[in-house]
Amino acid sequence: MSDRQQLRIPGPTPLPPEVVAALSKPMINHRSQEFRQLLASVSERLQRVIGTANDVIVLTASGTGGLEAAVANTIEPGDAVLSLCSGYFGERFAQIAERFGAKVAYIRSEPGQPIDPAPVAEAAKKQRFTAVLATHSETSTGVLNDLPAISQALHAAPERPLLLVDGVSSLGAAPLGLADDEYDIAITASQKAWMAPPGLAMLAVSERAFKRAEVCRSPRLYFDVVAARKSASRGETPWTPAETLLYGLDAALDLILSEGVADVFARHRRLSARLRQGLRDLGLSVLSAEAWASPTVTAAFLPAGLAYAQFQAHLEAAYGIQLAGGQGALKDKVFRIGHMGYIADEDIEYLLQSIAGTLQHFAISGGGN
Amino acid sequence: MSDRQQLRIPGPTPLPPEVVAALSKPMINHRSQEFRQLLASVSERLQRVIGTANDVIVLTASGTGGLEAAVANTIEPGDAVLSLCSGYFGERFAQIAERFGAKVAYIRSEPGQPIDPAPVAEAAKKQRFTAVLATHSETSTGVLNDLPAISQALHAAPERPLLLVDGVSSLGAAPLGLADDEYDIAITASQKAWMAPPGLAMLAVSERAFKRAEVCRSPRLYFDVVAARKSASRGETPWTPAETLLYGLDAALDLILSEGVADVFARHRRLSARLRQGLRDLGLSVLSAEAWASPTVTAAFLPAGLAYAQFQAHLEAAYGIQLAGGQGALKDKVFRIGHMGYIADEDIEYLLQSIAGTLQHFAISGGGN
Repeated sequence: MSDRQQLRIPGPTPLPPEVVAALSKPMINHRSQEFRQLLASVSERLQRVIGTANDVIVLTASGTGGLEAAVANTIEPGDAVLSLCSGYFGERFAQIAERFGAKVAYIRSEPGQPIDPAPVAEAAKKQRFTAVLATHSETSTGVLNDLPAISQALHAAPERPLLLVDGVSSLGAAPLGLADDEYDIAITASQKAWMAPPGLAMLAVSERAFKRAEVCRSPRLYFDVVAARKSASRGETPWTPAETLLYGLDAALDLILSEGVADVFARHRRLSARLRQGLRDLGLSVLSAEAWASPTVTAAFLPAGLAYAQFQAHLEAAYGIQLAGGQGALKDKVFRIGHMGYIADEDIEYLLQSIAGTLQHFAISGGGN
Repeated sequence: MSDRQQLRIPGPTPLPPEVVAALSKPMINHRSQEFRQLLASVSERLQRVIGTANDVIVLTASGTGGLEAAVANTIEPGDAVLSLCSGYFGERFAQIAERFGAKVAYIRSEPGQPIDPAPVAEAAKKQRFTAVLATHSETSTGVLNDLPAISQALHAAPERPLLLVDGVSSLGAAPLGLADDEYDIAITASQKAWMAPPGLAMLAVSERAFKRAEVCRSPRLYFDVVAARKSASRGETPWTPAETLLYGLDAALDLILSEGVADVFARHRRLSARLRQGLRDLGLSVLSAEAWASPTVTAAFLPAGLAYAQFQAHLEAAYGIQLAGGQGALKDKVFRIGHMGYIADEDIEYLLQSIAGTLQHFAISGGGN
């Protein structure tokens, strides 16, 4: 068994030793110069990795909390919202908007398919939407949606709706692909490509979104991005921050920037392509086509007759590997592999060998594709 | 200078070495038996320390997030809410209720004074309130409010309102003092008496509050306590939890329970009494009277002519001690000392000697009281 941690779920992801070491730093006064330097270091370098000049707000919350913050600051009861939904996490984002009283119209793709921009343009032409909810990497299917094409489609609208992007499992591993004035809030979370523990949501927020937040009447204090921005201008957070997790994220940003952002993105593309090819070589079918495969998550169909629980139990017992099962309609049909953050070529090879061994164990003959 | 960390702000508080060590544990699958054991261990032992059979929900959020969760699950626009407000954090709790559309009536105490139960009973008799917001230990003044007296006062109401208690800086160091059917949500946070890093809010929630949450229409998904309870029944959290912080809290609960809950409470009472006496011996005036002094936070008046910034700068430079300043109307009038969690007699003695040295440095002669 490899001595590297083989937690291959789509988050939490394994932590590099440098990040683990940083978690032990002592607590500090969150109203001090030391904290101001930490917050500035994290915020400014998040901007560099995301590739934006928009403010990046760091919240103590999971990725779902980040999605809720995006909704709570921009969407009011009765607002028309267009959900571009390519899987389970797209549904969750829309569910939050519904909880906040939005009238949500859905454009859904088939599992493993990305959103088609053509009906998006049609919808945007016909109806005025306050906001459009889009998923970048859909963690339930391993599809990377084409955000530039979606943004382009919204040009059909008389007035561009706010574009809220779930980038939870893509940012840090893939470029957003949008200029700063083409989206309004992009959300990511510490435990995905960022190689840090769960508990921080990071939101890149446009000027237009801040303006909307200033007048948006949906109730929130904890998730108020205007309050967060105001505090950040003084190097503070409005509420006590999760210092330990900021230490970890700061150390992870050191690693990302010393590897180089372009190289980190290239590594994710290379490893995910190798993984998909390796799965096909074993006779397995990958859910998403090559053209829109996510660089961070891959879903593949289980061989006929092999239950996910059996498959996972053997992978763990024999190889120490943990994958994730399918969600919603894909439950017991696919298995999912997270390959983001602290992951190298050797991990993908070990994973493929382990899956091959597991298929052999269950006497499932492999084959080319 | 002592080799123990002298961070004496009212949270974050210093971490014991056992808690620091626990923060380095590797990430695990949050849908696994290993995680289920962790969550069960934390939740069940939180119940023991708080002294309740009510479910304790653990959220990834700061204490303010916990206050918002309490409001979002119980209060709707137009609801009449009674705020018992003895300082800055009481105002914050009420502000959240106002953000959620409540019509808030206030009963305020003077700084350093607790809430008088008599007008509470009067108000409860005259008007039907959906909820009453009370603070246990008011972190801005060092006052411990008498929750049993407040609960008693609410018996005057034709139907008891929901009682939501900010126990952020008291629970873990002091008993709540209420039976399970006398309050509805009590909120605390990991970075206070719990000796863990910031980032977790813990809510003890009554059956009555869950029933209210099931029908309460205020928008929330992330803070939905009904969803959290349903997930907890399977040993899970609805959204990805801050595993690192749960590891820390679990290790801190080991320490609290091996010291013994009653002994932890007694230690806090003893240390805070010694601190207040020591401050008075130095000629300083404590904001709250002995009878309602908080066992976790003490506010004392700055000597005339000594600015807080000067006082703090010398304390830190000469002794490595960090205290906190006053908030709101108390800014530049008082200084505040957090003495909760990982703190021992020697720390209080060191703190008093350091304050004495600082007063001498500024040539402020001490005196008895």
